[in-house]
Amino acid sequence: MAKEKKFVEAITSMEEDFAQWYTDVVKKAELIEYSTVRGCMILRPNGYAIWENIQKQLDERFKETGVENVYMPMFIPESLLQKEKDHVEGFAPEVAWVTYGGGEELPERLCVRPTSETLFCDFYSRIIQSYRDLPKVYNQWCSVVRWEKTTRPFLRTMEFLWQEGHTAHATAEEAEERTIQMLNLYADFCEQVLAIPMIKGKKTDKEKFAGAESTYTIEALMHDGKALQSGTSHNFGDGFARAFGIQYSDKDNQLKYVHQTSWGMTTRMIGAIIMVHGDNSGLVLPPRIAPTQVMIIPIAQHKEGVLEKAEELRAMLKNDYRVKVDATDKSPGWKFSEQEMRGIPLRIEVGPKDIEAGQAVIVRRDTREKTVVPFEELQGKVGEILETMQKEMLERARNHRDAHTTEAVTYEEFKDAVANKPGFIKAMWCGDEACENKIKEETTATSRCMPFEQEHISDTCVCCGRPAKAMVYWGKAY
Amino acid sequence: MAKEKKFVEAITSMEEDFAQWYTDVVKKAELIEYSTVRGCMILRPNGYAIWENIQKQLDERFKETGVENVYMPMFIPESLLQKEKDHVEGFAPEVAWVTYGGGEELPERLCVRPTSETLFCDFYSRIIQSYRDLPKVYNQWCSVVRWEKTTRPFLRTMEFLWQEGHTAHATAEEAEERTIQMLNLYADFCEQVLAIPMIKGKKTDKEKFAGAESTYTIEALMHDGKALQSGTSHNFGDGFARAFGIQYSDKDNQLKYVHQTSWGMTTRMIGAIIMVHGDNSGLVLPPRIAPTQVMIIPIAQHKEGVLEKAEELRAMLKNDYRVKVDATDKSPGWKFSEQEMRGIPLRIEVGPKDIEAGQAVIVRRDTREKTVVPFEELQGKVGEILETMQKEMLERARNHRDAHTTEAVTYEEFKDAVANKPGFIKAMWCGDEACENKIKEETTATSRCMPFEQEHISDTCVCCGRPAKAMVYWGKAY
Repeated sequence: MAKEKKFVEAITSMEEDFAQWYTDVVKKAELIEYSTVRGCMILRPNGYAIWENIQKQLDERFKETGVENVYMPMFIPESLLQKEKDHVEGFAPEVAWVTYGGGEELPERLCVRPTSETLFCDFYSRIIQSYRDLPKVYNQWCSVVRWEKTTRPFLRTMEFLWQEGHTAHATAEEAEERTIQMLNLYADFCEQVLAIPMIKGKKTDKEKFAGAESTYTIEALMHDGKALQSGTSHNFGDGFARAFGIQYSDKDNQLKYVHQTSWGMTTRMIGAIIMVHGDNSGLVLPPRIAPTQVMIIPIAQHKEGVLEKAEELRAMLKNDYRVKVDATDKSPGWKFSEQEMRGIPLRIEVGPKDIEAGQAVIVRRDTREKTVVPFEELQGKVGEILETMQKEMLERARNHRDAHTTEAVTYEEFKDAVANKPGFIKAMWCGDEACENKIKEETTATSRCMPFEQEHISDTCVCCGRPAKAMVYWGKAY
Repeated sequence: MAKEKKFVEAITSMEEDFAQWYTDVVKKAELIEYSTVRGCMILRPNGYAIWENIQKQLDERFKETGVENVYMPMFIPESLLQKEKDHVEGFAPEVAWVTYGGGEELPERLCVRPTSETLFCDFYSRIIQSYRDLPKVYNQWCSVVRWEKTTRPFLRTMEFLWQEGHTAHATAEEAEERTIQMLNLYADFCEQVLAIPMIKGKKTDKEKFAGAESTYTIEALMHDGKALQSGTSHNFGDGFARAFGIQYSDKDNQLKYVHQTSWGMTTRMIGAIIMVHGDNSGLVLPPRIAPTQVMIIPIAQHKEGVLEKAEELRAMLKNDYRVKVDATDKSPGWKFSEQEMRGIPLRIEVGPKDIEAGQAVIVRRDTREKTVVPFEELQGKVGEILETMQKEMLERARNHRDAHTTEAVTYEEFKDAVANKPGFIKAMWCGDEACENKIKEETTATSRCMPFEQEHISDTCVCCGRPAKAMVYWGKAY
């Protein structure tokens, strides 16, 4: 009993302390365990299984667009990292250096990859000769290391898992097309699978990737009103190609530089799922990404026929859904709490009375809605409810975001919004980095992106009053 | 034309120089590219796709036995690595050390994982309390680093991809059972999917894993008569548990140490596929592991209807097989060479005359056998030929191994076999490491394993003449 009490009590409510609620969910749902290595986390089975599903579904979408997977070394020699000036300036301060190997000091330091542009460029410079070799549309799934000072599970860790796509194209147009294509792919994936609506847009120069000509981003709004950059897609133009000498002979026999892109999505998306969908009972997983979609929980399982029935239902459902039976010797109440904490979309309760009546009870994780369903209709009903849940989770997230997006015309309105209305702020901008800096300094809000869907809020910059060049989404961000 | 000539000429015959043949295949089939990082290779799409298939099929088999995937940090603090004495002695000399991070010297060096026993033990010591928490049957897919002096693609590289399973059990019996279960799983996978027959057995103490109580291995024979250790499974007993304090309270309320295992398989298996099945035209991939199983090659593709027919056949086959059309502007001969070099199991040739006759030609990669097949029978015939090919590749590999296995009763016979009969040698052993050392020193052959299927070759040790304790497979090894 003591243990049961502890389990139920241990989670802080999100209204009381959102950061603590987040940490509690991450630990209690057994998504991660802290490790003895500072800033690194252990992805436990419940957490890693979510990543496996993200990986599988994202990878399928990649391959439909012609992406091929490769694997690059995890080390980058210092001289290679330094080849592109902006890039090294952006990353050198936060890398880990290997200086000894096999008992000897190395003649050249190797950094553990923070990202692999330089390795791909070096690779491409050797395998691209002719226009026939283009395009190259490669991707890798791996971990990268960035020496962060403060860390938070999934959102900011020293090592994290991701995919990084790196492409080389014959023309600038084709590179830009691929950059946008991948951004759209990310946004579709997040909306359709993770049930998280995204704002698509372009980063300002201040916020773009080190070495990129332009960076595109998808931005999501968390439950506490903070923004989360969820995926980025960069167009490098021919900047890296010139630094690394990646040239091809075109059909006209002229030597030309390739045009490159890169794009990535990380385990940070698990943090997004938690902070968009979670509630005070724990995690709520969208059905399409949930490792277990249905947990069958027997009631009074010691009674004759109950466990057998639970197993029979599992056998009936397992070809269409990811389904398990919780046949442990815990109490049903304890099992309900665990299923809720882990965010399993549906539970099916089945006990002696249900069996007698030829029915089971389906309970939705998000709304707690109960549906009594005759056994023979269970197969279809489960699918129906999962679909409805997936759709409604996206709608709820979209409504929440829209309800937490305000417009600001004057700087007073802007500051009031940052202070009192957690969420996105739509406001005009003159295009000058000085205004971005001033806003960040005075309000802690940053420019999230210049959305593709521009709106006209006013004629002048919200900060300086000069003529506006673009509408920008602003917000406090993770 | 110059380019076509170069492609065909570039491969050394395996009879002339097996090592060079291997390197040629690896490069020409575009499995890898060398990187600027010493001893690290780039897995190109053709190479990585094989690993993806290995990973997918092995992972499914793992999960059927209850394995759950996790992800552990890539760094191990020096103090953690040192906790188990034998283990650190085995690995410390070949690790890479990170000494700087985020611009500062680290208070404690971090090694890049060469294997993750220590991290799993540390993790288990924190999450295992009660018998209810057991067993833990975790696995991770990742890369590891070992500072090798000389390297060879797939077989020995500084960084390589693998999976490492780490389990914790309540009893010694259960740990031993899991150790053997995973060894059998590896052997079945290699035989059924990779078409490589395995000798299953136990390593001698001299050859066992650093820190293990016993190490089991599967050993394969390559085309040149050298052995390849292909997968290992270790039983640690409670050695690591004692070093790391991994205890659980049992049903009888007593605190007990867990019993642990680990087991791994690596990208080295791609090397095994090459060296077991390859020929002088390049790679030969077993159908079950081939990323592309069928390449449709149009003949005279500029003629009306040819490309359309090729595409029609692809559409017909694509739901059952992994199939592509080579519609590039190269000559058919060139395309044949490429398909053969890449080891694609079947090619389907289809030209104007075939279309007129309502048929296509299927050519098997391994035997070059041609089968003329009416279009309407193609669907079934492709599957039939792929199955036959898979089966015959395993048979051929088994016959080759058996034909290259000799028995030695006397030391003279043993030395003669090592010198003149490339392959496995079956000979009796007294159990003394001194004999293993002597044999290795004088012949370069090492003990591969004490096979589960013991045979009685003679009564006495092949080296010292004392009473024999076990029959051992010996051989030169990669």
